[in-house]
Amino acid sequence: MVDVTPKEATHRRAVARCRIHMQPETASMIASGAITKGDVLAVARVAGIQAAKKTPDLLPLCHPLLVGSVYINFTIEDSYVEVEAQVETFDRTGVEMEALTACGVAALTVYDMCKSVDRDMTIGELALWEKTGGSRGTYRRKSLEASIDEALEQSSAGLAAASVDGLDPDDLD
Amino acid sequence: MVDVTPKEATHRRAVARCRIHMQPETASMIASGAITKGDVLAVARVAGIQAAKKTPDLLPLCHPLLVGSVYINFTIEDSYVEVEAQVETFDRTGVEMEALTACGVAALTVYDMCKSVDRDMTIGELALWEKTGGSRGTYRRKSLEASIDEALEQSSAGLAAASVDGLDPDDLD
Amino acid sequence: MVDVTPKEATHRRAVARCRIHMQPETASMIASGAITKGDVLAVARVAGIQAAKKTPDLLPLCHPLLVGSVYINFTIEDSYVEVEAQVETFDRTGVEMEALTACGVAALTVYDMCKSVDRDMTIGELALWEKTGGSRGTYRRKSLEASIDEALEQSSAGLAAASVDGLDPDDLD
Amino acid sequence: MVDVTPKEATHRRAVARCRIHMQPETASMIASGAITKGDVLAVARVAGIQAAKKTPDLLPLCHPLLVGSVYINFTIEDSYVEVEAQVETFDRTGVEMEALTACGVAALTVYDMCKSVDRDMTIGELALWEKTGGSRGTYRRKSLEASIDEALEQSSAGLAAASVDGLDPDDLD
Amino acid sequence: MVDVTPKEATHRRAVARCRIHMQPETASMIASGAITKGDVLAVARVAGIQAAKKTPDLLPLCHPLLVGSVYINFTIEDSYVEVEAQVETFDRTGVEMEALTACGVAALTVYDMCKSVDRDMTIGELALWEKTGGSRGTYRRKSLEASIDEALEQSSAGLAAASVDGLDPDDLD
Amino acid sequence: MVDVTPKEATHRRAVARCRIHMQPETASMIASGAITKGDVLAVARVAGIQAAKKTPDLLPLCHPLLVGSVYINFTIEDSYVEVEAQVETFDRTGVEMEALTACGVAALTVYDMCKSVDRDMTIGELALWEKTGGSRGTYRRKSLEASIDEALEQSSAGLAAASVDGLDPDDLD
Repeated sequence: MVDVTPKEATHRRAVARCRIHMQPETASMIASGAITKGDVLAVARVAGIQAAKKTPDLLPLCHPLLVGSVYINFTIEDSYVEVEAQVETFDRTGVEMEALTACGVAALTVYDMCKSVDRDMTIGELALWEKTGGSRGTYRRKSLEASIDEALEQSSAGLAAASVDGLDPDDLD
Repeated sequence: MVDVTPKEATHRRAVARCRIHMQPETASMIASGAITKGDVLAVARVAGIQAAKKTPDLLPLCHPLLVGSVYINFTIEDSYVEVEAQVETFDRTGVEMEALTACGVAALTVYDMCKSVDRDMTIGELALWEKTGGSRGTYRRKSLEASIDEALEQSSAGLAAASVDGLDPDDLD
Repeated sequence: MVDVTPKEATHRRAVARCRIHMQPETASMIASGAITKGDVLAVARVAGIQAAKKTPDLLPLCHPLLVGSVYINFTIEDSYVEVEAQVETFDRTGVEMEALTACGVAALTVYDMCKSVDRDMTIGELALWEKTGGSRGTYRRKSLEASIDEALEQSSAGLAAASVDGLDPDDLD
Repeated sequence: MVDVTPKEATHRRAVARCRIHMQPETASMIASGAITKGDVLAVARVAGIQAAKKTPDLLPLCHPLLVGSVYINFTIEDSYVEVEAQVETFDRTGVEMEALTACGVAALTVYDMCKSVDRDMTIGELALWEKTGGSRGTYRRKSLEASIDEALEQSSAGLAAASVDGLDPDDLD
Repeated sequence: MVDVTPKEATHRRAVARCRIHMQPETASMIASGAITKGDVLAVARVAGIQAAKKTPDLLPLCHPLLVGSVYINFTIEDSYVEVEAQVETFDRTGVEMEALTACGVAALTVYDMCKSVDRDMTIGELALWEKTGGSRGTYRRKSLEASIDEALEQSSAGLAAASVDGLDPDDLD
Repeated sequence: MVDVTPKEATHRRAVARCRIHMQPETASMIASGAITKGDVLAVARVAGIQAAKKTPDLLPLCHPLLVGSVYINFTIEDSYVEVEAQVETFDRTGVEMEALTACGVAALTVYDMCKSVDRDMTIGELALWEKTGGSRGTYRRKSLEASIDEALEQSSAGLAAASVDGLDPDDLD
């Protein structure tokens, strides 16, 4: 676990998103409160918030920090539920892993509560969308597709740049 | 949390998989041990195993059980790493949530260790692939695409079947 | 931590209750969903369920066991909210501490979510109401008052009986 | 979980108390060290201190913070044991939930260790008694009864005031 | 984590010991209750018991099991305190890691509570002393020295035997 | 748990070490990757890092703090493996317990992974080697033997000095 003690505490924020793909009937049942195990999104929200706080216990090389806020929102679409998690802190290291973990665990909770009616659900597109407050400036993903295209283009320039990144003192944000 | 005490303890097994999509250079760096934070897959394997044991602490309505084995394997492809987790137990309830959680946390660990060289990584296709040992018999996903197609077809028959499922005493496997 | 390995695994159940006394306005705000931090009882229910699973981590001499079910219900009265927790297991030791802990943590969650509008709330009457399945037979509390009266009467017979209890092999249920 | 990052870190302190009502013989046995499971109050003290540190893991919307000190004291009376917990920190948010949780878990530990001689014990009067260091100034409860009376009186003025409280930036202390 | 599901649940027991070497004055202060942080051995006992229950969370490849009893005893000698932990269970896998972990964490707690008066304390001789109940029969260490001598003698026969051990179905006890 | 809130946050560092004594064949098997359970030192490193973060949950009177870095190194010798853990933080209290706990849990993990080929392994010489950053200045152990000799010599001067230490405001570093 690399050393963050020389870094300055600053206000940091990260936003992550993912989707739980499901049968349209499952999405309808969540929307109408017809899942017998309980209020799916209320339980998933709590699970996501708690997971943000547990992140350094789950990810071995993740630095502990004091989560200052966690917001989890859900959007129910025809064949998927989208989860968005926003985490903020005032600390020496970034909160993108907290936001990603909150999304992932909220999504797994949705799966757990709906699995008896839809075992084929798939969790996907778990990605970082925004990150502010570290020394490397603000990061914003344009779109899932754009990001992937850009990644592929960049990869022709590629490995050297990646290695240089590897030396950046703010890598561990 | 529904009651599993009347259920019989049997041998149960579940297999889940997911992928971390990344730049080809990132996949190469993982394969060649060039990620400076350490041996990515060794750390991710430990994180996944530990996460399987923590599942009931992460997912509010998930029953505690004694995990009997956890195996985590990784396949490095050109632009993604695939994670497979297999979990077994001899208990009253199934282990699919343990397998899915192990996959998801192993994938988040890969992200955490490689994020300084590739912030655009995306975790996807987190899904259950096999489940044996409950009263509802064996479940096997054919392929990601086939499962989705089948799901869409079934959804024309749909909601009624789902509701019937809802009454099955083994729903909570 | 006394030895439970010679005991037989049986179906065991416990019911506990407590009350959070509060200003009538606070109870109204909970009932009408006017507490800005979120759905108080939904969050408290999840907290209570999770706490039941964490009981042996909280109470040093409490044996670990596999909680088979947890149900938490709330009743909103004029000047208090009553919490009832029912826990079941099939194990070598009883679940009354799990039921009491679930009640207590659900009540503390209600306090946490409402404290900005009512700092004087008081949690009281946290007690075991029913316990079945151990070798000492069924326990049922009649009423808070009756129990206390009976306790005082018994206490004139008292200490000897208590000591004898101390030798009962099922003490540690 | 509301955002505390804009708040200033200050020295904060909270005191909470509760009582475990029991048969006089049980109180005597605790006082004389006659409970066979061990030194009841020593174990309960450790449990309370540990619980203060676990508070954000137990209460979903509670912010993590670094507990700077925890003191737990017990007073054995004729028919009850009183628990007092004092918690201090230098942080952005208050420690009243830590103090209340420490009291509650210490009391549950007393119950757990004495339950084989007195199953009718009741935990009550769990309340905040003092809180200093937040932007809303010092809070002091006068007495259990006075507080309740005052609460009832205030409740005729009531709900509007409560709503205003709801907007106070220091609500989440 | 290797698979224990085919193994039979049996009664299993393990005993481990270690010593905290310290200045004679430190041992005297522990014995006479002069350590200002509190009753050292009472706190260390609770820490050891709790650690036994947390073992699978601490040791990545350790199977979860339901600890049936934990006993921790201390002997204060001139220049060290000896810790002995005995753990029992009725399960598919052995409890030697639970006994060793309980000893180690109890010893670390002694260090933590006495470090302000003796920073040079050293924890040593943490070893398994007895193990019963697995398919490989009973293990008993004769003495620290004898065990080490025997180990060195056996090591001339050595590696082949060790490899054969590697195939024993009860290796993972 | 004594109060650290009046103390100043400073950069603090601690180094601890221990040894797992084993048969030479066991050391060879670790070195050559022949232990069938996996890469022993990679798993033990992760376990040690995670344990550093869990220290306040394991040691009851240990203050929570935000670990800023953890490094764990292993040296394989003929008949033992040496573990060294270095922990840093910027906080109000020292990290020697974190370093010692990381060493101890890494050593227990080595034991766990090798126990099927060598049940007689012994963990010893777990000690603090360096500590910087508190108000009492830097501490450095010269050697295991020298430290013990010095301790014995000092002990003739002894108890008074120890008591004076007991009053030092930085005792709880």
